[in-house]
Amino acid sequence: MVQPATTSVQRTVSLLQNGASSLVLREAFFRVRRFDEFQKRLGISRSVLSSTLKSLTEQGILDRRLYQQRPDRYEYVLTESGRDLYPVFLAMKAWGDRWLGSDGPEVTLIHKLCATTSHPAFTCDHCNTVIRASDMTYTLRDR
Amino acid sequence: MVQPATTSVQRTVSLLQNGASSLVLREAFFRVRRFDEFQKRLGISRSVLSSTLKSLTEQGILDRRLYQQRPDRYEYVLTESGRDLYPVFLAMKAWGDRWLGSDGPEVTLIHKLCATTSHPAFTCDHCNTVIRASDMTYTLRDR
Repeated sequence: MVQPATTSVQRTVSLLQNGASSLVLREAFFRVRRFDEFQKRLGISRSVLSSTLKSLTEQGILDRRLYQQRPDRYEYVLTESGRDLYPVFLAMKAWGDRWLGSDGPEVTLIHKLCATTSHPAFTCDHCNTVIRASDMTYTLRDR
Repeated sequence: MVQPATTSVQRTVSLLQNGASSLVLREAFFRVRRFDEFQKRLGISRSVLSSTLKSLTEQGILDRRLYQQRPDRYEYVLTESGRDLYPVFLAMKAWGDRWLGSDGPEVTLIHKLCATTSHPAFTCDHCNTVIRASDMTYTLRDR
């Protein structure tokens, strides 16, 4: 039996369980880096924002960098592991837009490389077909 | 300012905040439908499983169907909205496998259409390039 507590999906959900974390991440993907800008855009309390930034930094999702001295000021930049969460963000956005939104998406994504409104989809890296759950099967690692 | 409580990403996270929900969903994507099979595979208590199935049914993710009478027995089948969560599941699995796993993925996905081990990636539906956060920009809906 697969041990629930150790699966990848479960660990990733745990990371995002703090609602403020997912909001801070969303802003970070939109290139927000500074405390005051996060605060202004999210409208959450400074103490919640502060503890969320600390937690994401401790988890290796954000990197805290000094950008000014006297007084010292820090900005928060996505690490490689943080940037790698972008597909999770995209997938949740697409689902929420389709199934939970009532009057269209709040945010429309534009792919700069082709300059169009983009609706990214998961495709197989081998045959390039859009992935459907019904086309997938799996093997379990030996224990 | 975007209202945090109403964003698509936030609403999708809320749905998955219950750890048991994400586990039940994972099994559902692997075609598990019956209470006893969920219970056997997940090793969670019957009461937690029961309330999780009820909650996912109320949220329109699972459909409860009678498959046997006298005694009545039900199975739980993914709805269209439930199947549409598959990219969220895939994205979280890929991230967890890369960043949280210590000894390789527990589950290896195989794409039946091309019969290979698949590492699905988000691609732009217009130009087919793999999506990176740094290549995306966005517009906000007028309010």
